[in-house]
Amino acid sequence: MSRKPMARPGGRSTRVQRSVHDAVRALLAETDRDNLTVPMIAARAGVTPSTIYRRWGDLQELLSDVAVERLRPEAAPDDHGSFTEDLAAWAESFLDEMSSPPGKAYIRDALIGDPDGTNAGQCSAYAAEQINIILARATERQEPTPPLETVMDQLVAPIMYRILFRPDGLGEAHLRTLIDRATNAGGQEG
Amino acid sequence: MSRKPMARPGGRSTRVQRSVHDAVRALLAETDRDNLTVPMIAARAGVTPSTIYRRWGDLQELLSDVAVERLRPEAAPDDHGSFTEDLAAWAESFLDEMSSPPGKAYIRDALIGDPDGTNAGQCSAYAAEQINIILARATERQEPTPPLETVMDQLVAPIMYRILFRPDGLGEAHLRTLIDRATNAGGQEG
Repeated sequence: MSRKPMARPGGRSTRVQRSVHDAVRALLAETDRDNLTVPMIAARAGVTPSTIYRRWGDLQELLSDVAVERLRPEAAPDDHGSFTEDLAAWAESFLDEMSSPPGKAYIRDALIGDPDGTNAGQCSAYAAEQINIILARATERQEPTPPLETVMDQLVAPIMYRILFRPDGLGEAHLRTLIDRATNAGGQEG
Repeated sequence: MSRKPMARPGGRSTRVQRSVHDAVRALLAETDRDNLTVPMIAARAGVTPSTIYRRWGDLQELLSDVAVERLRPEAAPDDHGSFTEDLAAWAESFLDEMSSPPGKAYIRDALIGDPDGTNAGQCSAYAAEQINIILARATERQEPTPPLETVMDQLVAPIMYRILFRPDGLGEAHLRTLIDRATNAGGQEG
C-alpha cells in the first residue's frame, strides 16, 4: 500500500481506485483469478496498465488491496443486550464470513500481495474495531470485560488459525468453547 | 501436493524432489524470490522444466512444498524436566523461528501455493506433533495437562496470528501470558 497516494474523496485518485477495484471484482465474478491480468483489468476499468503498475506495483498488490476493502465491515456489530451475546453473534458471523470460499480467498490475497504487512494488519484492525465497539457497550452496561488483546488471543486468533491452518476447520461446539473462554477472561491479565 | 506421487526413498521420484528442492533453496540464497523461474530452477536441478510442471503444477506450488519441508522440525523438543518449562522453551523457539524474515516468508509460501490447504495443514501438524511430545512427557511425569487442542488455541494460534496479522508482533511479556494461560488450562474443557 505504500505506493498509494492519499486519496481525496471525489478526487481523481479516488475515482481511479474505485473503477479499478470495481473492475477486479467484476472480473473475479466472471473468471478464475489465475486468468486475471493487469491489461485485462485496465481495459475494464478504462485506465492504462501503467496507471495500475504505478499505483499498485503489481497484480498481487492490487488483489491484496481489493481483498482488504472487501473485508472491511459494513456496519457496527448488532446490539443483543449483553456482552456474551454480542460477542457470540459477532464471532459466528466472522467465522461464517472468513471460512467461506470467498472469505478464504480474500484472506489469502490480503496476506500475499503485502510485503510490508500493512494489509494483513488492516484485516486485524477491522476485527479489533468491531470488538472494541462490543467492549465499550459492555462497559456502559457495567458488565465486566476482558482487555481487547485477550479477546484477540482467545477468540479471533484461534478462529483465523483454524481457518488457515487446520484441515478440520472449527465446529459450533468448539466456537462456543472459545467464546466462553473469551467472555470469562474478564479478570485475567491482558 | 495432490500431483505429487508417493516417493519411495532412494527412488527416482525422491531424487528428483531432493534435487529440485536443493536448487530452490540455493537460488533463494542467491536471488530475490520474485526473480525465480521454473526454467532457472530446472537448469540448476538438472531436470527439464516439464518435470517440474508435471510434478508441482506451477512455481507457487513448488515454493509451497519447499517451505513446508523447511518448516519441518529437526528434532523432538528438549526435555527441561517440567511441562511448563518444556512448553515455554518450545514456544520461545517457535516464535523466534516463525517471526524471522525467512520464517515469515516460508509461512507465506506454504499458504500461497496451496489451494487445497494440505501444506498449511502440514505446518500446523508439525507444531501439534511437537506439543504432543511435550504433553506425553508431562503425563509420564504425572503432571496435569490441557488437551492438545487447547494448547493450539491458547498458544500456537495467537503466536501465528500475531506474526501474520498484527503489526506489533508479540513481545516477551505477552508470550509469557500466553504460556501461562496454556499451562494453567489443565482442568479446562478442550
